[in-house]
Amino acid sequence: MPTLYHHPLCPHSRFVRLILAEYGIETTLVEERAAERRREFLTLDPAGKTPVLVDDDGTVVPGASVIVEYLEDCLPPDFRGLRLMPLGLHERIETRRLIEWFNVKFFDEVTNYLVMEKVYKRFLAPEIGGGAPDMDLLRVARANLRPHIRYIGYLTEARRWLAGESLTYADFAAAAHLSCVDYLGDVPWDEDETVKHWYQRIKSRPAFRPLLADRTPGMTPGPVYAELDF
Amino acid sequence: MPTLYHHPLCPHSRFVRLILAEYGIETTLVEERAAERRREFLTLDPAGKTPVLVDDDGTVVPGASVIVEYLEDCLPPDFRGLRLMPLGLHERIETRRLIEWFNVKFFDEVTNYLVMEKVYKRFLAPEIGGGAPDMDLLRVARANLRPHIRYIGYLTEARRWLAGESLTYADFAAAAHLSCVDYLGDVPWDEDETVKHWYQRIKSRPAFRPLLADRTPGMTPGPVYAELDF
Repeated sequence: MPTLYHHPLCPHSRFVRLILAEYGIETTLVEERAAERRREFLTLDPAGKTPVLVDDDGTVVPGASVIVEYLEDCLPPDFRGLRLMPLGLHERIETRRLIEWFNVKFFDEVTNYLVMEKVYKRFLAPEIGGGAPDMDLLRVARANLRPHIRYIGYLTEARRWLAGESLTYADFAAAAHLSCVDYLGDVPWDEDETVKHWYQRIKSRPAFRPLLADRTPGMTPGPVYAELDF
Repeated sequence: MPTLYHHPLCPHSRFVRLILAEYGIETTLVEERAAERRREFLTLDPAGKTPVLVDDDGTVVPGASVIVEYLEDCLPPDFRGLRLMPLGLHERIETRRLIEWFNVKFFDEVTNYLVMEKVYKRFLAPEIGGGAPDMDLLRVARANLRPHIRYIGYLTEARRWLAGESLTYADFAAAAHLSCVDYLGDVPWDEDETVKHWYQRIKSRPAFRPLLADRTPGMTPGPVYAELDF
């Protein structure tokens, strides 16, 4: 069974967990606090960031976007009836553009601030950056979130799924980040009905269940985190 | 002819320019100052970052890693005798890991600070972040650069090219970032002879010539920037 080094509230880890669950690939999960820079973890991946996938034959695949392309290289086409990377050239560009949008831009502007300030800093020793959340950064993240919600709304109004008419990796990237923000109770769900409906559809998929059951000790999830109808 | 929206000292743009030149794909270059958020540019790519490639048929491909996968999707295997994305599964992981290493980690830790502080801030109006460079950030970037040079040295001592025995996208990603830092005169070339020799080899390729001829108005390049033997 492959092993995934992850953190429960790392959005990139959640993205990979969702994908692996969609593909029905069972995985041993190992919780890694990347900021502690554990030597064995750095040996696996010198960048020292979650997620890192170690496949059955020992192949080490570090980072969400490298894992996506690895799965595309390895899995047969239409594996389990899914085609998360579309065949058409334009749809492929759009899928990859949106994976990048959420895993880099949304992360830099929203998820990274919220998860760092509200989650990671609680568990870190003061000498490596632990402490109370910086309220200014939380405000910045929440302000940055609003245009992103509008952008997801713009996409889901015009299309069934984010990158087009079919479900792709892009939906799972977006949903992974939103699910972290939702755990922290920071998604303004009332802002846009189409975003809510799109998220309800993806949240209702069986692959989402393990994430909705995740609980971080000492942190109660937001009020609608595990609700399919919210 | 395809069009590339780029900035001469944007490392991700340089990476794509090198790749296109290696493939012999002539491109119209349009200089874009992404921080000015020009409306027509944001219409092309809402993320508003260089590089953006517009292909002959109008296909818009935004961002270095999406451009790489687009080229891999479009070009015939062994195009121009090059195989910048290797065939072997492990070599593909390693190539993509290192593209990400330089385009994300090296960028966040080194190039972004140096280019933002020394270049972009000169051209920006004060109200959108222009001004004198922050010397503390320049010190951070230069300190962060040293372990990266050691890491490139570690790789090039064990291998002919960064990702293995053959030239890959990874070498161009690394060289693109180093060439920006070198323009600014900040690469400590004396630190590691193997790094210098690897860079000399890649810098001597014809694809590198246009970059070495680049001059940003008011900024003289570092003393060895255009020298092949330094």
